[in-house]
Amino acid sequence: MSKRAAIIGASGYGGVELVRILARHPQISELKLGSRGSSGKKIAEVYPNFTKLLNNQLLDPEEVINDVDIVFSALPNGLAEQYAALASGKNIPFIDLSADFRFADEEIYKEWYGSPYKEPLLHEHSVYGLPEMNREKIKKMAAGEKAPIIGNPGCYPTASTLGALPALKHHLNAPGATIIFDAASGITGGGREPQRSFHFPEANDSMTAYKVGAHRHTPEIQGNCGGIPIIFTPHLVPLNRGILSTIYIPLKQPIAEDEARGLYENFYRNEPFVRVLPKGLVAATGPVRRSNYCDISVHLSYKKDVLIIISAIDNMVKGAAGQAVQNMNIIFGFEETAGLQEIPALF
Amino acid sequence: MSKRAAIIGASGYGGVELVRILARHPQISELKLGSRGSSGKKIAEVYPNFTKLLNNQLLDPEEVINDVDIVFSALPNGLAEQYAALASGKNIPFIDLSADFRFADEEIYKEWYGSPYKEPLLHEHSVYGLPEMNREKIKKMAAGEKAPIIGNPGCYPTASTLGALPALKHHLNAPGATIIFDAASGITGGGREPQRSFHFPEANDSMTAYKVGAHRHTPEIQGNCGGIPIIFTPHLVPLNRGILSTIYIPLKQPIAEDEARGLYENFYRNEPFVRVLPKGLVAATGPVRRSNYCDISVHLSYKKDVLIIISAIDNMVKGAAGQAVQNMNIIFGFEETAGLQEIPALF
Amino acid sequence: MSKRAAIIGASGYGGVELVRILARHPQISELKLGSRGSSGKKIAEVYPNFTKLLNNQLLDPEEVINDVDIVFSALPNGLAEQYAALASGKNIPFIDLSADFRFADEEIYKEWYGSPYKEPLLHEHSVYGLPEMNREKIKKMAAGEKAPIIGNPGCYPTASTLGALPALKHHLNAPGATIIFDAASGITGGGREPQRSFHFPEANDSMTAYKVGAHRHTPEIQGNCGGIPIIFTPHLVPLNRGILSTIYIPLKQPIAEDEARGLYENFYRNEPFVRVLPKGLVAATGPVRRSNYCDISVHLSYKKDVLIIISAIDNMVKGAAGQAVQNMNIIFGFEETAGLQEIPALF
Amino acid sequence: MSKRAAIIGASGYGGVELVRILARHPQISELKLGSRGSSGKKIAEVYPNFTKLLNNQLLDPEEVINDVDIVFSALPNGLAEQYAALASGKNIPFIDLSADFRFADEEIYKEWYGSPYKEPLLHEHSVYGLPEMNREKIKKMAAGEKAPIIGNPGCYPTASTLGALPALKHHLNAPGATIIFDAASGITGGGREPQRSFHFPEANDSMTAYKVGAHRHTPEIQGNCGGIPIIFTPHLVPLNRGILSTIYIPLKQPIAEDEARGLYENFYRNEPFVRVLPKGLVAATGPVRRSNYCDISVHLSYKKDVLIIISAIDNMVKGAAGQAVQNMNIIFGFEETAGLQEIPALF
Repeated sequence: MSKRAAIIGASGYGGVELVRILARHPQISELKLGSRGSSGKKIAEVYPNFTKLLNNQLLDPEEVINDVDIVFSALPNGLAEQYAALASGKNIPFIDLSADFRFADEEIYKEWYGSPYKEPLLHEHSVYGLPEMNREKIKKMAAGEKAPIIGNPGCYPTASTLGALPALKHHLNAPGATIIFDAASGITGGGREPQRSFHFPEANDSMTAYKVGAHRHTPEIQGNCGGIPIIFTPHLVPLNRGILSTIYIPLKQPIAEDEARGLYENFYRNEPFVRVLPKGLVAATGPVRRSNYCDISVHLSYKKDVLIIISAIDNMVKGAAGQAVQNMNIIFGFEETAGLQEIPALF
Repeated sequence: MSKRAAIIGASGYGGVELVRILARHPQISELKLGSRGSSGKKIAEVYPNFTKLLNNQLLDPEEVINDVDIVFSALPNGLAEQYAALASGKNIPFIDLSADFRFADEEIYKEWYGSPYKEPLLHEHSVYGLPEMNREKIKKMAAGEKAPIIGNPGCYPTASTLGALPALKHHLNAPGATIIFDAASGITGGGREPQRSFHFPEANDSMTAYKVGAHRHTPEIQGNCGGIPIIFTPHLVPLNRGILSTIYIPLKQPIAEDEARGLYENFYRNEPFVRVLPKGLVAATGPVRRSNYCDISVHLSYKKDVLIIISAIDNMVKGAAGQAVQNMNIIFGFEETAGLQEIPALF
Repeated sequence: MSKRAAIIGASGYGGVELVRILARHPQISELKLGSRGSSGKKIAEVYPNFTKLLNNQLLDPEEVINDVDIVFSALPNGLAEQYAALASGKNIPFIDLSADFRFADEEIYKEWYGSPYKEPLLHEHSVYGLPEMNREKIKKMAAGEKAPIIGNPGCYPTASTLGALPALKHHLNAPGATIIFDAASGITGGGREPQRSFHFPEANDSMTAYKVGAHRHTPEIQGNCGGIPIIFTPHLVPLNRGILSTIYIPLKQPIAEDEARGLYENFYRNEPFVRVLPKGLVAATGPVRRSNYCDISVHLSYKKDVLIIISAIDNMVKGAAGQAVQNMNIIFGFEETAGLQEIPALF
Repeated sequence: MSKRAAIIGASGYGGVELVRILARHPQISELKLGSRGSSGKKIAEVYPNFTKLLNNQLLDPEEVINDVDIVFSALPNGLAEQYAALASGKNIPFIDLSADFRFADEEIYKEWYGSPYKEPLLHEHSVYGLPEMNREKIKKMAAGEKAPIIGNPGCYPTASTLGALPALKHHLNAPGATIIFDAASGITGGGREPQRSFHFPEANDSMTAYKVGAHRHTPEIQGNCGGIPIIFTPHLVPLNRGILSTIYIPLKQPIAEDEARGLYENFYRNEPFVRVLPKGLVAATGPVRRSNYCDISVHLSYKKDVLIIISAIDNMVKGAAGQAVQNMNIIFGFEETAGLQEIPALF
């Protein structure tokens, strides 16, 4: 049975990627697009790639939360709660791509995002939407009386958590040791608003780190890792799409690389979107481009005392819109890969 | 009813793009992959993006032309006829992505490609596969007793011909005047074989022209334009994908830009893959990326005496594999857009 | 004898390239930097590449036109005349990188740039600063009583004019025939102000044309070509730097390619910055990157009836700041290559 | 007093960068170019950017080690010793850009590079040429009777060592703790030989790690760090030039970020090519492009227990040819910045 979906914030990069995926989703029959800034325009006026393909007009956000079966929000941080409240009032599932529903602990949100919850009650029936970690929780919440609210994970936390999770669940890490996530992102991660750091002549052919020791994805990754000490360092690289996270996990005791890889393969053996790469391949962003896959390769340091994981995703798909659709598929009981079966192209 | 397809030359860029599209085509039930150089390997060993998605082994080309309903060849120029002969012997349709079946006139082929036809009889039931120009011929041939052979157009000729065709059919051009096609290609157009011109440090951040006055796509474009004088100048730009053709058509008599655009829109009104852009938009390669669309924008020179057309395609899709699948859809009577409905992403 | 230079508009891309070059010019003893928007800041606060290399503070433009021997202006179009008037009042040479002093005919400026001259008298002792065309005029004006004002040529016009000039001077072109300049620019050509077209994710991996039939460099190129009919079509390509102009010159009568190349070589035999490439090489932007060279390659169309010239420059150097320094060298009687001897790097 | 220089391996990327720098060095009067593979050709036939600028013919390597004052070798690893022996026989200083003279301990070289020294005696008067670490040793050796042999550091080790050195010299690091160097390189680092990883369509718009836990620069970095445990992970990013090294140094005891930055600034206060960035700036490869500078920014982890250093160089300049010229300047007693004063351009 098909469903009707609304997208708020459809004119941003996260939103438009949702449009691209949902417009071809086999079980989505109708798409309503909301935009705070561009309401009144046709989507193809804002994104020329939709010319003659999609005739949707952008509407006010409030307007689209009507006569739909699910609402996606791709607004910037700090704006989702009011719309979640509206959806919740109509008992419509709400999937938020911002950070607003990612934290169980309001204190952490306040510390890193600077404001308290506006609608604290809503957070009681929200869940962090990393399916590989929380699939059963998501299903359970979807089966409950109240429509679920999904805090869709950040791009860096998705790649980083999927890379660390099997090692942590198998207690390979030395207790108390800090895990380092040294990660890089393509420039779509910064959104559509032009600014100097993303101006072609200054972003092209250059690489930098940013927000060293201070990026907001730190507590999200740390929470996913059970609260152990971590360091997260983001870098900006001249890619359109892609997150590569290089993860250093000090080992509790020696383990052979093949054995570690075997644990990873087994951990993800039923996951439709995680590919643990065979020996000899190293995860890269190219081979997951424009797909919902997360590629993971397993390595050891030269002295064999640190597990080194390389984890790669497309930040716009598994790191944002694709994962949101995966969450929707779980909520509605669709095939989890529905609408997400595009084969990544290497180029 | 679904069909079984074989791809020869599956390990090249044109071939692997066919694999990517056909593996998700709703009416293709089986895919056999042939490769002259990599036979014996799994496709995912050659292209890591297929890891855990496609388990096909690459086979000898001869082997795959068995128990299939259609054969695609993505071999380099000069190698297709022998496999076309095999397919023809079994009365299996054959779609060739090389130049070998693009010319009705053997003399032109000999002049530009340096060798005569090896199998001249085959060319009698071959047709140039630009659907927007030859759809009825393709259908008629597909309806005949002998399985058709399709000469799938070149990338530059596809963008260039689609851009010029409406003006020529409406006789807007000054008789005898030379039409200039100044075009640029992304670097996948050069194939997968590493070479200095495509070595990242020398191709990146640089632009050049090449084969000025001497590129083999000249006679193909000229033939599509009815033999009138043309000049074709290709350029290499640091894009992965894309052809942009800027076309200068001296006008027989003045025409308003809007009227010319109207003629173009009308000419392509029933074409599923050609988008004549509204006034104010200029065709670009980004908005057609990874799709089978051809975007065309219509302009006039400052003095209004020359029609300037900008035509953009993805060289790997509408310029190669996508167009081949479009031809297959026509041959089998499938929906012409089957397997080709991906929405282009702007980035 | 060394000189003191001022740069107005030093925080834009054209201005900062002047800073880079003049700071290492052997005969420039002092550099004053003016900026309308960033005055008060150190240059290294605005451009981190100058950190610990250049300690200059940005001053108000009026302030820097004091106690200097030459003034460069790299302001946007329409702002130079007031500063030229100040410099002129002190009889200081003024080199303007904008379009404001490029046109001898005010009517053309008004038509294309939308406003009349504010200081018409100043234009009487201004000269168009393309040394390969006007060296003697520049020298003569510099030798006069009034300090010269140089209208430094546009980037597209520089590459385009240098490519066409020898053919026109030798009357190779068919009289009355339109010459087409199909050209492409790197993205620094758009300046430092962030905007959507230059936002990395939308500019990267895409190519487009823009202002088709309507770009302001049209009358400048046409003027340089003696007023004959021309068409100029600019394109945007994902390069940091570079202009490539592909020029189509219909021939009055047949000429062998080698003979045409010989004429070009001879025409530029004494020019320090124009390199007519030997047979077999095609001009490209990579091999002139970050240098003041203009590379030109000479070709014929397939039918030998059209001369095709490929002309390449670095838009920031020969297309802007480098040429301005070349003009300064001529004015002061320095070695014309002083400060401009950097060897281009291929990558 | 000017000197004559020879470059062996002048047709590779390291060699040609030496040519570019030395051809404009104020104290180099003559340049002889040797090449094993391209001998007989003119340098401009191999690198078109030299057209009409440099007329040098490539000669056999043996031939160029005559009548010169210094020899640079930019050959691949494993080939330098024979030429060092020739130079040494004539008591000519020899600067080797390969790994062959980087290790004091032959065992380490054998373990990582697979072969013993062919000329063990030569290594007795060789020195590792990182001026910021070994300037006095280099000077002393240059003052000795035997001409010095310089093992010019690797690109990754240069950025990584310069980033770690001040912390280590000040004993900020927790004894026994592993220091992680997570670094990325532009693609010129892979040399000029075309190969699949560096083929534009596969390298562009993708990022990967490589040789995880196994890269040969590991022992070189470790040696420079006094033998403490390290992990080094290299990544490939789509840049032409640049190394960015992100360095994690667990602290022995807490230190304020400003204090740590102060130690760094003081450590490098007399170094002409190291720029410790002020608070608020993060090191990036763009602002050092095509220069001999190393930019270093100093940060703390969120929990203040790990010092995070970002260190950026141009891999072809400070990471190879520029540093070699810096070493030559030291040997000959030239100004250390001679020939290396180009201001980096941001784009």
